[in-house]
This record gives sequence, structure tokens and C-alpha cells, in this order.
Amino acid sequence: MDDRLKQQLEFILEIDKEKNIFRQTHISNNGRNENDAEHAWHMAIMAYLLKEYSNEPVDISKVMLMCLIHDVVEIDAGDTYCYDSEGLKTQKAREDAAKERIYSLLPIEQKEELTALFDEFEANETPEARFAHAMDNLQPVLLNHSNGGRDWKEHGVSADKVYGRQSKTKLGSEKLYEYTEEIIKEHIRSGEIQKNTQP
Amino acid sequence: MDDRLKQQLEFILEIDKEKNIFRQTHISNNGRNENDAEHAWHMAIMAYLLKEYSNEPVDISKVMLMCLIHDVVEIDAGDTYCYDSEGLKTQKAREDAAKERIYSLLPIEQKEELTALFDEFEANETPEARFAHAMDNLQPVLLNHSNGGRDWKEHGVSADKVYGRQSKTKLGSEKLYEYTEEIIKEHIRSGEIQKNTQP
Repeated sequence: MDDRLKQQLEFILEIDKEKNIFRQTHISNNGRNENDAEHAWHMAIMAYLLKEYSNEPVDISKVMLMCLIHDVVEIDAGDTYCYDSEGLKTQKAREDAAKERIYSLLPIEQKEELTALFDEFEANETPEARFAHAMDNLQPVLLNHSNGGRDWKEHGVSADKVYGRQSKTKLGSEKLYEYTEEIIKEHIRSGEIQKNTQP
Repeated sequence: MDDRLKQQLEFILEIDKEKNIFRQTHISNNGRNENDAEHAWHMAIMAYLLKEYSNEPVDISKVMLMCLIHDVVEIDAGDTYCYDSEGLKTQKAREDAAKERIYSLLPIEQKEELTALFDEFEANETPEARFAHAMDNLQPVLLNHSNGGRDWKEHGVSADKVYGRQSKTKLGSEKLYEYTEEIIKEHIRSGEIQKNTQP
């Protein structure tokens, strides 16, 4: 086997480990915790089906690829729960080191391409990154809502934190943010999200 | 919420069930059985990274979407192990019924689009379908090889069956088939794949 294919297959085998990175979100029907690979798969299909709701025109293939690879760094850095303020402080440094190690398994130009795509996602300054972030936020909301809001309740999450996180959804899709807001309000009323300062 | 978005979100929630459809393949490091959502995620990234090895030029976005949705029917039809000859007899009828039920959750034009894409994958007559099938075959071979060939051994699979299934890989990628063939030969020598009539 030539070196190039060998490098590509090493990366492909390495990212298999994403299937063992578990998130705080539970899958529907009050199932087990979801892992990063499943989450990315779900986001990519959502992006394709909901692309008409993006605030700006997007290159949907790019959005999908961004969704598929956005959590690769968590193989080393672990999943940082979006309401874990301590973990969030060190998240960038941990993820930068992971990015360098994991993407370096690839042939150089594929490393550069995927690293640039990941950086674009993180910077959240392009239409594609904004829509991908909307998917990253909406996907766990849909699952959590289908499970009666248990993830918010178990973590004692307050309304301002949920609104804070979902503000990124609005940048990618006003329409999907409107729907997210309905869900949030419902779970504030029914008590799974703690009442708090609201925007 | 308008009806169209409601239909789209119902489909999105429905396909969450793919995360509970487990395959015969085990994830790397002798992990648990892999589920359909993870398998599809892995295939889509592989397709993107290995596209240079497709026998024919492909629309890679189409291949990736095909990979992502190709197992949705298994939510109702279940996973049919590729060496289960009894299951294979009824597979098509079970999957056709599933396809109709699940894709009908979507707005009509999205139903038609995804159904056509699934049918194209199944027919295996376009460059995109052939390359997607190569990924569908190669992905479990990579995992199984990383685990010392345990899945072949546990199922007592014979060489002619493995070669039969992998013949589809060759249609999508001669180069990746060559590598697959090396792996198969290695596992025939070391006994995880039973010796048998060989092509």
C-alpha cells in the first residue's frame, strides 16, 4: 500500500474513536447518551433538509462536511458540556492540540483543508459556519425536547444560559431560532429550564 | 410552526432511531457493535477523503448524502447481515415498505428526492452509487481488520462469500479493492476467514 493511502486510512481508523465520545444529550425515547459520531451524522442530514431556512445562501456540501468533522478534536479533548463554565475555559487549548495531532495523520493538503474547515466552523464568521452552528444547537434541542427536557433539568440549566447558547442559532437561521424559542419557553413554563433573567 | 417545518422535524426525529440499529461489525479496539448512524457518518467522511480512488469521476456531495441516508430503511427493516442468506431473501420487500413509510414523513419533493437517491444507491448503476457501495464495503473491513478479523471468525464466514461481497468494491474503486484483497488474503492465511473456493 502506498504511503498516501496508508495515511488516509490511519486517519479514518483514528476518527472511529468519536463513537466513544459521549455527550450530555440523550437520544430520543429516553435512550442512552448520544455520541459525537451520531450527533455529527444527524446534523449533516438536518443541514441538508433544512437548508431553505438558512439566513444566507450556503454551499450546503461544505456545511455538511463541516458538520461531519466538527467534533473530531473531541477524541483527545473530550466533550465540553455547553453549560460547563470551567471546562469552557480550557476548551480552546485542548482542542487546538487535538486538531494538530489528529489532522496531521492525513496527507498534508487534506490536513490543511480539514483544519481550515474546522477553523472556519469555530470562527463562525461565514454563512456556512453560522448554519452549521445552528444545526449544532438545534439538534440537541430537538432530542431534549422529545425527552421532555430532561437534559436541562438534570443539569439545572437556567434560561439565560439556554438563550445565550441559542443566540448562535439565530445568526444561522431566524426561522429555526423562532421554533427553538417556542421550545425554550415551553420548558421554562413546565419547569425543566430554571426561570432566570431573560433577554 | 408551519406544516412543512413540522414534517421535516418529524422525519429528523424519526431517523434518530438509526442510532439503535446495531450491525454485526464491532468498532475499533474491540469495542461494542456499531450502529447504523455511526456507520453512515464514517462512510460519508471516508467517501470525501478517498474520492481520488473512485474509478469514475463522482459528484462527491451526492455520494456523501447517499452514504448518510442509505440505511434509514433499517429503522423498520432491521440490519440484514451481508452473509445472512435467509434474511437477504426478504430484505428488499422489508426495505421497500420501510422506505415508503419513513420518507413519507417528509414534504413530498424531499420524499421524492431522498427516495430517488436511495433507489440509485440500491440499483448501483451510477458512478456515485458504485463509489458509495465501495465505502459501504470497505468501512466494515477496516474495522474488522483492526480487530483482528473477529467478525468474520465469529460468523464462520468463508472466502468466497467475502470475495462475493467485495466484488462491489471493485466496481467503485479498483485501487481500494486491491487493498481490500490484501486484507482478505491475510485473514485467509491467519484463519479468520475460512478457506474455500476462491475466484
